[in-house]
Order: sequence, then C-alpha cells, then structure tokens
Amino acid sequence: MPSSNVRYVSPPITANNSSSSTVISAANEDDTWVWAQIKSEARRDAESEPALASYLYSTILSHSSLERSLSFHLGNKLCSSTLLSTLLYDLFLNAFTSDPSLRSAVIADLRATRQRDPACESFSHCFLNYKGFLACQAHRVTHRLWQQSRQPLALALHSRIADVFAVDIHPAARIGKGVLFDHATGVVVGETAVIGNNVSILHHVTLGGTGKVGGDRHPKIEDGVLIGAGATILGNVKIGEGAKIGAGSVVLIDVPPRTTAVGNPARLVGGKEKPSQNKDVPGESMDHTSFISEWSDYII
Amino acid sequence: MPSSNVRYVSPPITANNSSSSTVISAANEDDTWVWAQIKSEARRDAESEPALASYLYSTILSHSSLERSLSFHLGNKLCSSTLLSTLLYDLFLNAFTSDPSLRSAVIADLRATRQRDPACESFSHCFLNYKGFLACQAHRVTHRLWQQSRQPLALALHSRIADVFAVDIHPAARIGKGVLFDHATGVVVGETAVIGNNVSILHHVTLGGTGKVGGDRHPKIEDGVLIGAGATILGNVKIGEGAKIGAGSVVLIDVPPRTTAVGNPARLVGGKEKPSQNKDVPGESMDHTSFISEWSDYII
Amino acid sequence: MPSSNVRYVSPPITANNSSSSTVISAANEDDTWVWAQIKSEARRDAESEPALASYLYSTILSHSSLERSLSFHLGNKLCSSTLLSTLLYDLFLNAFTSDPSLRSAVIADLRATRQRDPACESFSHCFLNYKGFLACQAHRVTHRLWQQSRQPLALALHSRIADVFAVDIHPAARIGKGVLFDHATGVVVGETAVIGNNVSILHHVTLGGTGKVGGDRHPKIEDGVLIGAGATILGNVKIGEGAKIGAGSVVLIDVPPRTTAVGNPARLVGGKEKPSQNKDVPGESMDHTSFISEWSDYII
Amino acid sequence: MPSSNVRYVSPPITANNSSSSTVISAANEDDTWVWAQIKSEARRDAESEPALASYLYSTILSHSSLERSLSFHLGNKLCSSTLLSTLLYDLFLNAFTSDPSLRSAVIADLRATRQRDPACESFSHCFLNYKGFLACQAHRVTHRLWQQSRQPLALALHSRIADVFAVDIHPAARIGKGVLFDHATGVVVGETAVIGNNVSILHHVTLGGTGKVGGDRHPKIEDGVLIGAGATILGNVKIGEGAKIGAGSVVLIDVPPRTTAVGNPARLVGGKEKPSQNKDVPGESMDHTSFISEWSDYII
Amino acid sequence: MPSSNVRYVSPPITANNSSSSTVISAANEDDTWVWAQIKSEARRDAESEPALASYLYSTILSHSSLERSLSFHLGNKLCSSTLLSTLLYDLFLNAFTSDPSLRSAVIADLRATRQRDPACESFSHCFLNYKGFLACQAHRVTHRLWQQSRQPLALALHSRIADVFAVDIHPAARIGKGVLFDHATGVVVGETAVIGNNVSILHHVTLGGTGKVGGDRHPKIEDGVLIGAGATILGNVKIGEGAKIGAGSVVLIDVPPRTTAVGNPARLVGGKEKPSQNKDVPGESMDHTSFISEWSDYII
Amino acid sequence: MPSSNVRYVSPPITANNSSSSTVISAANEDDTWVWAQIKSEARRDAESEPALASYLYSTILSHSSLERSLSFHLGNKLCSSTLLSTLLYDLFLNAFTSDPSLRSAVIADLRATRQRDPACESFSHCFLNYKGFLACQAHRVTHRLWQQSRQPLALALHSRIADVFAVDIHPAARIGKGVLFDHATGVVVGETAVIGNNVSILHHVTLGGTGKVGGDRHPKIEDGVLIGAGATILGNVKIGEGAKIGAGSVVLIDVPPRTTAVGNPARLVGGKEKPSQNKDVPGESMDHTSFISEWSDYII
Repeated sequence: MPSSNVRYVSPPITANNSSSSTVISAANEDDTWVWAQIKSEARRDAESEPALASYLYSTILSHSSLERSLSFHLGNKLCSSTLLSTLLYDLFLNAFTSDPSLRSAVIADLRATRQRDPACESFSHCFLNYKGFLACQAHRVTHRLWQQSRQPLALALHSRIADVFAVDIHPAARIGKGVLFDHATGVVVGETAVIGNNVSILHHVTLGGTGKVGGDRHPKIEDGVLIGAGATILGNVKIGEGAKIGAGSVVLIDVPPRTTAVGNPARLVGGKEKPSQNKDVPGESMDHTSFISEWSDYII
Repeated sequence: MPSSNVRYVSPPITANNSSSSTVISAANEDDTWVWAQIKSEARRDAESEPALASYLYSTILSHSSLERSLSFHLGNKLCSSTLLSTLLYDLFLNAFTSDPSLRSAVIADLRATRQRDPACESFSHCFLNYKGFLACQAHRVTHRLWQQSRQPLALALHSRIADVFAVDIHPAARIGKGVLFDHATGVVVGETAVIGNNVSILHHVTLGGTGKVGGDRHPKIEDGVLIGAGATILGNVKIGEGAKIGAGSVVLIDVPPRTTAVGNPARLVGGKEKPSQNKDVPGESMDHTSFISEWSDYII
Repeated sequence: MPSSNVRYVSPPITANNSSSSTVISAANEDDTWVWAQIKSEARRDAESEPALASYLYSTILSHSSLERSLSFHLGNKLCSSTLLSTLLYDLFLNAFTSDPSLRSAVIADLRATRQRDPACESFSHCFLNYKGFLACQAHRVTHRLWQQSRQPLALALHSRIADVFAVDIHPAARIGKGVLFDHATGVVVGETAVIGNNVSILHHVTLGGTGKVGGDRHPKIEDGVLIGAGATILGNVKIGEGAKIGAGSVVLIDVPPRTTAVGNPARLVGGKEKPSQNKDVPGESMDHTSFISEWSDYII
Repeated sequence: MPSSNVRYVSPPITANNSSSSTVISAANEDDTWVWAQIKSEARRDAESEPALASYLYSTILSHSSLERSLSFHLGNKLCSSTLLSTLLYDLFLNAFTSDPSLRSAVIADLRATRQRDPACESFSHCFLNYKGFLACQAHRVTHRLWQQSRQPLALALHSRIADVFAVDIHPAARIGKGVLFDHATGVVVGETAVIGNNVSILHHVTLGGTGKVGGDRHPKIEDGVLIGAGATILGNVKIGEGAKIGAGSVVLIDVPPRTTAVGNPARLVGGKEKPSQNKDVPGESMDHTSFISEWSDYII
Repeated sequence: MPSSNVRYVSPPITANNSSSSTVISAANEDDTWVWAQIKSEARRDAESEPALASYLYSTILSHSSLERSLSFHLGNKLCSSTLLSTLLYDLFLNAFTSDPSLRSAVIADLRATRQRDPACESFSHCFLNYKGFLACQAHRVTHRLWQQSRQPLALALHSRIADVFAVDIHPAARIGKGVLFDHATGVVVGETAVIGNNVSILHHVTLGGTGKVGGDRHPKIEDGVLIGAGATILGNVKIGEGAKIGAGSVVLIDVPPRTTAVGNPARLVGGKEKPSQNKDVPGESMDHTSFISEWSDYII
Repeated sequence: MPSSNVRYVSPPITANNSSSSTVISAANEDDTWVWAQIKSEARRDAESEPALASYLYSTILSHSSLERSLSFHLGNKLCSSTLLSTLLYDLFLNAFTSDPSLRSAVIADLRATRQRDPACESFSHCFLNYKGFLACQAHRVTHRLWQQSRQPLALALHSRIADVFAVDIHPAARIGKGVLFDHATGVVVGETAVIGNNVSILHHVTLGGTGKVGGDRHPKIEDGVLIGAGATILGNVKIGEGAKIGAGSVVLIDVPPRTTAVGNPARLVGGKEKPSQNKDVPGESMDHTSFISEWSDYII
C-alpha cells in the first residue's frame, strides 16, 4: 500500500479553467455527484454536437452507473480480435462492482485531473479522452487480478494497455488515489514500484528497475510528489513526500521530502546541504518550473 | 496564426534521396502535381507489389482527390468501435474541402518531409505511412473544430490521435505550414503552444505548460526552428527564429534567434554572451549534431 | 551484418525469477524445446484461467508450430481495415518458414528476454505480451522484405508496427540475435543503424541520424551493449562492445568498448583518460545503476 | 422504365395502425416532411430508450439529410472486410444526391410500407429495420450503376445485398416507385424483370427466368399487383395491372389485369373464361385471402 | 400465452442418434444437467479439435452459466457496427437472468431439438450452431422487451435477427416451449401469431397475415403441431392440437386437431368429412411423409 | 460418391451471353486457363473501375493461385468475431491444396455456372459474387472435414455458411461436380442426401428428411437433374438421371429418369404411364418451363 501518512489534504475544489462556468460546490462532493455531472456534461455535449451524440450515448448516456460506463468504454478501447470486448467488459464490470475501493479511486483520479490540468474541460472530457486516466483505471483492474493470483490474465490485459495507450504499468505496481498521469504516453512503471496518493506524473516518466535481479527494485513515490515530463527514476529509491522531480531528470538515489531534484544527473535545487523547501504540494500545485531561478548553471 | 514574419523561403526542391530517380522540376511545383505524383508512385508500387495493391487502391488510387484520399485514410486509421469510420470520413472530408488553407498545409508538410527526411522514399510513402504527417493533418482538423467552438468533438478526435499515433497535440495549439514531425511518437504539444512555419520537430518532444494555472502557458516556436529528439520545452517561452534545440535538452527560458541550446538544463552553444550563430535554417537543414565540437564538457 | 567478433557467449541459462519453479535444463536447449515450453505454459494457463483460454488457444495452442503461432499473432496485432489479417498472416508465415535465420533469432530473443527481465514470467508471457519482442520479430520480416527490394510493402508494415507498438525501426536497420527491447515504447532506430548480438535496449531509446543528408548516418551498436531508458544516440557513431549507456544520456560521439557513458552530454564514468571498465556484459547483466558511486557530480 | 400508364393514384394517407397516434395530414405530404418525421420519431425513441439512443444518433439523428442517413445506414449494413463502409457510403451518397428520382422513390417506398403494413410502427421503423425497404433502395443504386455501364461494381454490391438481406434482385431489373417488399427474405428478381408502381411483393417470391438462353426472359409486373408469399413466376410473362397472385402459386403464363391467380399450377379465381374482378388495387389493399371462398377445391 | 391445455407430455428422452454414445439418464433431467452436458461436450470437442478450442472456450467454456454463454454468443452473432456486442450482451444477460421462464424455455428448446432432429449431434451442437434455436431464443428476448413497452429496441433487435439468421419473427408473436425451428431459414411469423408448446416448424414456413388491416390477423398454432417445409398459413386461423401441415401446403382456413392438411390449396388427408387421425404428436414425432399413400392424386 | 454412370458429357463451351465478347476456345479448357481467365477479367475490371480495384486486388489479383484466392475470399466471407479469418483461411487453404479433387470440382462448378446462367457475366463474377458457388465450395471443405471425423469443426463451419449465405447443406451430404446452385438462398440439403454431377438446383429447394429417425433418409439426385425454384423433395427417394422437377413441386416418391414432375403433390408430365421424355440434359439446358403446354390443368 502507498505510504499511509497522507498529510496532504485535498484542497477545496475550484474550477481551474476560467473559461468554464461550472460551479463545483463542496456540498456536492460525493461520488454520486461526479457521475451525475459526467452525464449532465455528456447530455449537454450531445445536444450541441449531433455528430458526437452517438458516441456519448454509447459510452456514457446509455449506462446506469459509472462502473458500467467505464467498463464499456475500457472494454471497447482495449479489445482486440483475440480478446473480445464482451469478455473485457465482463471482467471490468466484475472488478469495479466487486471492489468499492476501485470506484473511489476512479472518482479521486477524476477529481485530481479536473483540478490540476487546466486543459481539462470537464469530468466527461477526462473520463472519455484521457489516456492516462483510462490506463490507470485499467491498471487498477490488472492489479486486482494480480492480487488474486490471476497473473496470466493480468499480463494479457497489461499488454493491451501498453499497446493501446502506450502506458506500461506492471500489474503488480501499487498506485494510490488522486493520481494524475498527464498526457501519459510512454510512462513505464515497474513491478515493485509504489506510487502514493495525490501524485502527478507527466508523460515519458520511467519508474524503472536496476537490472536483472528480481526482488524489490523499483522506486517508491510518496504522497504529493510531482514528476516532470521525461524524468527517469531507477532503482529502489524513495522520492520523499512532496518532492518535485524536474522534467528530463535522471534520478538514481533518494530524494528528500519537499525538495526539488533537477538535471541529469539530478541535483537538489538549493544544494545538497540546505535544499530549498517546497511550500506547497507539488503533485497538486503542478508547478513545473518555479525552480528555474535557483538552477545555478541554467543560463541561456 | 504562427509568427507572420516568415523570412525563410522554401529552397529549391531537390531530391534528397540519391536512390530515388525522381526528378522534381520546379515548374511542376503546384498542388496538383503533388497529388498526381502520389498517384503515380502508388500506381508504380501497386504494379510491382500485388500484395500491396489492394491497400494502395483503397487508400489512394480509387480516390479522385487528395482530400478524399486523406479523409479516407485518416477515417480508417482513427476510427474505433464507437467512432465509426464513415463519421470520421465525413468530418475530415468536410473540413478539407471547406478550408483551402488545410489543403495547402497538407502539401507544404508533404514537401517538407520529402525534402528533409532522407529516409522518405516518396510522397506516397509519407502520405500513407508517416504517423507524424498524419497526426499533424488530423490535428489541423481538430484545430478547425476548436475554432468553430466544437470543443467536445475536437477533444474526442484528439483523443483518438493520441491513442493511435501516440502524438498528443492539443486542438487549440496553432501549427504553421511546412512542418515536419519526424518519427513523432511521444510528441506532446500543449494548448497555448504555437509552432511557426518550416519547423522540424523530432519524436518525444514536449512543448509543455508550467502548472495548473490556465492562460497562455506554452512555448512559442518561431519559424525555421529545429527541435531534437526528446527535448522538453516548458512554459510560455519563445524559441527564436532559426534556433536549434539539441536532443534531450530541457529548456525553460527563451532561446534567442539563430542560436543553439543544448543540455539539461540547456545552455547556449558558444556561451550566453556571444552564442554561435546558426547560418542555415535548422528546421530545414536538419543538422542535429554539428554543435558537438563546441559543446565544452562533452568528452568521451 | 552485426559485428562478427561475438566474444560474449551465452551464460548457462538459469531461471532468473525466483518465484518461478521452472527448471530449464541445458540439455533441452534447442528450438523445439522452447516451442514445447510455450505450449506447455499456455496449456497450464488455459486450465487455470478459463477467461483466457480462448485467447491462448487461438494464439498458441491451436497452432502446429512456433512460426504459425507467431504469424497468426502478429497478423492479428498489426492488421487494419485496409491491411487484412489474412494478408499479413500469409506474409509473416512465408517469411518465417522460408528463412531459418528468422526462426533462430526469434528463439534467441525469447531466451534473452526470459533471462534478463526479472518481470518476465515465462516464455509464453514474452511471446504473447512483450511489445518489444513482437515489434522486433515483425521488424525482422520488414528487413527481409527490404532486402528483397520490396520497399513499399516493408514500409507499409513498418508503419503498422510504429502505430500499434509505438516502436519505429526502419526496415533497413540491421539487428542481431538475442536482442531485448524492454518496454520498447518510443524506441526509434534509423535506416543505417546496426545493432549487434546480445544487446539490450530500454524504452524511449533513439538511434538517430544527423540531418537531411542520406548515406550511412546512424549509430552502430556492438555486441553486448546495454542502452538505458531514454538514451539518445545520434549519428554514425560506434558504441563499442560491452559498453553501457546510462538512462537519459545524449551520445553524439563514439563510446569505447566496455566503458560506461552517462549524462547529457554524455561523459565516460571514471573519466575520459582512464574510464572504468565494465567487467560483465551489460547487455546481458542489465546492471543499470552500479555506476552511480562514480558519477562525480551526482549529489542529492 | 416500369409501365407508364399508372392509373392507380396514391390514396389519401391514413394511419393504418390504430396504436399510433400520429396524425398524418395531407398538407404535409412532401419529402421534407417524411425526413422530419423520421427524425422526430427517432428523437422520441432515443429519449425513451437510452440503450438505443447511440444507434439512433449514429443512423439518423446525426445526419443532415435523408440521403446522408440512408447512405450511412446502407454503407454500414452492406460493408465487409473487403468492401469498406467508407467506400460504400461514398457510393451511396453520390448516387442519392446525383439522382433526384432515387430520393423520390425512397419516399414513395417509405409511404407504401407505412400505409400497407399494419406491423409498421413508424417511418423510422421502416427506414432502419425493414430489410425489404433497405434492399430495394440499395438495388436502386446498383441499377443506376448498371445503367452507367459499371457492371462489376453493380454486381459486387448486388452480391452484398444478397448475402446481407437474402434478397437477390439483379442490378438490371427495373423497379417502380411505391413498392413494398414485405419481410423480403428469399426474394429473387431476375435480370430482365420489370416491376411497376405501387406493387407489393411478399417474401420468397421469385420472378425468374426460363433457362439458359439470354435475352428478355423474366416477368413483367404491372402497376398495383400483389404477389403473395412464396409465389413463383417464371418467364417473360405479364402480370396485368391490379392482378393478384396467391401465396405459393406457380405462374408460367400471363395473368390478365385485375384477376386473381392461385395454386400450383396457378388458375384464375372465378375461372378462365369469366374470372372474378379485383375491385381495389391489390398492391395497395394487401388483401391476401379474400378469394378463398371462390377457390373451388379448397376444402379442409 | 400459448394454449394452456398441453396434453402432450415430453416422452422419455432417448438418444436419437445411434452414432452417439451419450447416455442420457432420466435422473439428470434438470436444467443444471443440460448446461453441464453442454460444457462436457465442448470440453471433449476442444480437446479433440484444437482449431476449434478457441471458439469453444470463448462461447461456452469460459462462462459460468448457460445464461452468460448464450448472451455472449447471441451478442456476438447479432452485433453490428452500430449495435455493439457489449450492448447486446448486457441486454440479453439482463433478460435471461431476470426472467426464469426464458431459461426454462431455452432448456426445453434444446431438448426438443436434440430429441427430434436426428442430425443434431449434441446439445452443444444445437446451442452453438442451430440458427433456428438461436433466433428463437433471441426472439424470446425481443418479446420480453415488447411486453415491457420497449418497442423500438425490440424492433431493432428483431431486424438484426432477420438479417443475420434470415428468420423473421415479429417481437409480439407468442411462442411456447419445446419448439423446434428446423433449418429455420426463411421462417416468417407475424405479429399476432401464437405458437403452442412442442411444435415443430420447418424452414420457409410462413405464419402470415391477411392484409393491411391491423388487429388479430395471424395463425394460432396449437400444441404438438408439425408444419412442413415451405408451408404457408395465412390469416387468423387455428391449426388444431396435434395437426400436421404438409410441406409446401397453403392453408387459409382452420385445420382440425390431429388431422393432416396437404397441398396447395391444402386439403385434409382422408377427406374433409372423415379425415385420417394422427395417432402420435406430429410436432414431436416429426413424421413428414407418412400421409403419402393416402394423398389420392399423388401419382408419379 | 455420386452415381458413377455419368453419361452426360460436357458440351463444347460457348459464351452464353451475347453481350460478352470473350471467346472461349476449347483448346484452353484446362484448370490453369480458368484461373488465368479470372485474373484477366479482374484486371480488366480493376482498370475500368477504380472504386472496385482494392476489392479485386485483395480477393483475386494479389493471389498466386486459385486455391489461395478462394481460401482468402471464403475466410473473409465466413469469419466472425469468434471464428477468425486467419483460422478459416488456413483451414480452407489446407483443404484445397491437399485434395486435388476439390480443385477440379471448383473448376467444374465455375464452368457450369458460366455456361448455364445467362446472367453470369464472367468467371470472376461467379467466383466473387455467387453465393451458391461459394456456399458449395465451402461445403466441399466441411464435407472433407466430416470424412476426416472432424465433426465439430465441420458443423461450426456449416453454421457459418448457413448464417452468411442462407444455404444449409449438411456436411455429410455428398455433391458431385459441375453443380450449379442458382441464387441459392434458402437451399436446404440433408445429411444423407446425394447430388450427382451436372445437376442444377435453384433457390429455396429442399432435399429433406422424413422424420426423427436417423439413417439414410434424404433424396438421391442423379446426374443431370434440374430442380426448379422452391421445389421440396423429401425422403430417401431417387430423382432419376436427367429428370426435371418443376418449380414449387412437392415430391415424396421416386421420379423416373428423363421425366418431368410438377405440382403439389407432383405428378409426371405426360402421365404416370407414359410420361414425356426429356430429350436434353435438364441440369445443363436449364429449361424451366417448356412443360407448360402439357400441364393439363394449368389454365389461366
């Protein structure tokens, strides 16, 4: 399980997209509300865009629950001529309805995306179109299969996720809630990696192993971490709570909590001895570039 | 629109692939000629390779115009069980025939690829097989939908492009003409990014944002720029006309025109004060590595 | 052809995954054995997991030979609405049965994956699910077509591989045996690149060219090399036998044998004059991170 | 063209289905009204049945015209892995928009079905679900191709209609307007057959030839004829205006106008010399069985 | 509901196919046994025929219940590009699991086929391959939808059944249990038709209406009736219990119980006044031709 | 095997379609010639009709032999989501290449169609589009599987043929060469039926059984017989050499050679005692209607 001392509480949700007039009131913040909101958005879009209505009805509006809708969507996205959509639909639906924690993780991830990605137009936009979101939910099901000792099925599904979304998360990897995989293409997460809650991970990020020896060999990403695009973290290292890893960084050793590591090889912003302290939760604030001024040799 | 002061004129087209005997005469340089050339190449290939003839007839030879052929090809590439090929075909065909600027961009991109990529065998090779070319043309249609305030449809199509080609260009991003996305896998271009004319961008390149605040937050790539594989450019920074970004570079601040930035974090080749000046148009000359001798600490 | 002086012999095969009880006896090490093993694993999985049995029968258990099984699997993975599975099946089957060297390469690659990747559960797991393995075998067929001067067909197939697996290996590139493409998403290998035997290449690795001039312009990777995730190697440079390229490195000049290059721009671990010597075969030992202690400025 | 002396005028349209509350006013009897009605019905059904909404949007509600909707529907019904839906869609759309007479025939056939078949719930029901209606409209397009000397294409499309709907109408056969093929399975209409206006033909009806000699060799069915289920009419015989052919009849010679032929071999009801006269238009009144009392040897 | 006075009890089941060694013990005659038997047959066939194993696993062996298996099979048979298999699977599964009478009808129909058709090799043969059986079960679901006032969905599904199986049973038609539709191609059953228990109906049989007036206008087939190939029965007539209708007959008036009607127009065997009496249950004994000797004018 | 005393020799082939300018010389009458002719026709059509070229290349022009082309075409026609085209292609190709008699039967059937059906435009027209021809060739493969004791596979394939073509020929039924199934929809041929050489059978023809008792119970059709549309022949009766069965006839007892039976129930034309003698070979001359004048009570 991801690190248990989750200090970072979810901030009040505010629309992060000024072009959106949606008012998200705290009182409505329950799971039912999100599904109702998705349906409402889809209905609005179906009305304004007949060319998309068929798509919106088949994926969202014809379904009686978020679990059914998501199972349908994933089943149709991930099926192939040898793994039929009906089989996958059944598999997903069974998992999502048997395990309430999967559902709450879906909701948390939807909220995380909506809150942190200014390009995220709406919940339904994320739900339908974000490959990072979809790959992550499908991973949660492969992880459940893995825990049930159904390795061959988990790996076959994992292979489909890697083909379809170009997101390669080993079924054994453990992922917390409120996680955002933004853009997501090229993400690789190894077998013994652990990702905490409220983490944000950009595309092309690798949480990789150290060689051909088995055992615990992949990174542990604690709560609230932000990992920039193209960062490579290798080995059983710990990225401490609230740390930030700059885009393109190569990290092979532990990064202390609330610090920022940048570069190849990565160094701490502010220096090893007295690194600068992140004041917010990078995984939530998504501040990618504020460390520039302190990056000593960054001169253009 | 991309920056308007396009100084870089298209050089006389010369076959860049010595194994090709095609003579491309300047007199024929009009749009009609390119489509005729594509058909002629496809006809030659269909004759020499019966196993491919069906493919070539269905994609190219059965069509009366480049717009129809491209719409058919993109419709079949990007369709899914919930977004039917006929719907997408209609959508593409409507866009390409309504907006002449889309067509001229298609032609310019084909020429750019043919000219700059020595592995590009022929126009039809690019037209059929280059995921960067196809993703870019599909993006041009999502951008048109975006401008027509058809966001939900633009985003659904964007999602298909990201799944199928692993190329993730936000529908709102503005892209000039004569642009080459070489290899293209993993390219990410954010919502407020702008790419000028005659730019060449390699695979895994990110033109990313700076955080969760909306507004203008992505790079502006001016005309003639070359961005090497895996480069990450973040924030509302300007990469000046004719600049070159080395492979794997991480760029967080402006790069002056006609200079070369390399490294993580990126520095200017020749130094900040008196950087070396690029003499050609990197986006067209595609010279990836000539800066090595000046890269001071690059010692193997 | 890859460099001929292959000094690195295949070590005795031992199960590298302690959770696997499979005993792989040296006496059985022939091609027949591997296929029998794949079938046996598939049969075991089909029995324990009925939901997967249909998949396992259609891909493996219904086939009388490894060539047929692989041709079927690749045909179904790579087909599209305009390139039918039956056509591709025929194409693959014809290649694999006409050219015994393709078959032995398949076996060598399967063994390499099984031996080097601790997450590889079984031969059938690799055979069915590893996009790097599948893309590489499909590439071997495109390469054969290229050598037979069937360029258009080779390029159409190459395009499908790039779309489906996000692995972009030019049909002309030459690849040795016992090669592992681990995770594989985003790998780009250029036209004149050469990869030796027993090489291991992680995801996002680029073996790229230098510009728009044709001719021999891509890296030559000698036997036993290990290239870490996200490394970019550009130009007609030689990566010497048994060398190691760190994750995220950018390499533009030759790397001597048995040395390790890291960083952007890459430098030799131990210094240019007297670099540390790799004592094992990195492409086989897969040791990604042992150089850390010698990476002078790597301080977090 | 079908016989020109069409005496039978279309009667005032009245809802023939008491369970339908639709009021069909004569004032609205134009083509536009029918398409509007189809959309309105589809909208009502989409609202009341979310499971069907996706289907109704993709087939009807997303289309701007009856021609587009019908072309989409037929393209998706008749496509195969070797005749793609996009190709067929294009073909149908081109035909329906180029030839106004096709459109008016579509409308007339819709009205005929709605009026004569008490099981026909609504225009959209016929439009979407009646294989006889759909096969007939697809035939009208093959007939147009045939007249344009595009025999191979017409025959390929004819083959698809025969496979998908089990309705086999030779592309050269000429069919009037206001024709109802009820149930339609097993209908066979030969090359030189002619079917007039306002004809109703039940399932398993054959309008066949006489042997292996070419030339004009199939039946001519004049206006207003009703042909019962399983009737077989062979040779260049004329079934006169307003005649009725009983179910299961075998007819090899001319049948006079306004008479009824029944049996195997068929005889005229009322006798050869002074046959009973049909007072209505059988093709419109659809009275299948009123002749029983006069069928002399019909004794159970 | 079908006529309630079901006198005909199911005879002890005996294997009717001497080439089958299956012993069907009366003690096992419950629903569970039939599903177990289907699985057992499928397992045997999968073992003996690897080429079919994938099909047998996906359709039968991977499913935990007859309802799931049948829903999967029908969903995949009846789906189209605009009515996805996942939607149909859901629809069928919901119906079969909500309504126990559907399940017992499935079992009764399986038994009827196995008992009466000497070409029926096994239960799984019927379950997988008999279009009459499959069309009838799918009809039972459309009938349930009809009763739930979901007409548009029922009619869309009806249209798929008519296209795929060439079996056209109106959703409103009521069908009893233990019904065999043998061969089934071309069967047409109208809206107000009723078919009792233990009826056998051959292919091309029409239970049709009398014209364009609505209301109760189709045949009522009582228990135990046998209707031969190509017979046409029109109008609201009653075919009495245990009656037999000869192949190719045209029947327009009532047929008394336990009599045989043959010919076009049909007459009673033995004469109208004192017709021969059927001693067995024709719908179960399937004796098609024993009446020949009494067919007075049948002379060849 | 069909009756061995095949007296009817194939007449010199002459183009039966005056609109065709093809000259079919007797000297070319070998199998190779037919395949060359099919390719030549397809090439001509591909040139004149670009919209069809893709279809013609994929089905015919890309294949090196008639066996491959036919296997591809049948595989794609008969595949489903649970019986993949690659599997069927393999199955057909294996059968057609292992058993030379299948190939010669294909040729004989092509010639029969070309010769006897005036609507048959060309060999390629029959090869691609005639459901009777295609169903018959697919049946020949199911029959071979049946003889190899591969019943489950034969029956699964039989089911696909019955679904796709609405032609239901039991795998055990034996069919001679030079057989034409014209139109073919609704044909049913039972398990123990035998069809000789040079037989022509129209659509909706039933060769059915007599009840639920197994054993030899279906018709035996001798050489040269013609069976008209909708005829029903039931029981183990013999239709003698060169006999003709009128459309819609119901035949339950033997028909002597060279006689014509018509009606329901069928009687011999010319009377039982001294029936008229057919002078030609009806199965080849296809004369459907010449008996009318002798049909005593046929009076209209």
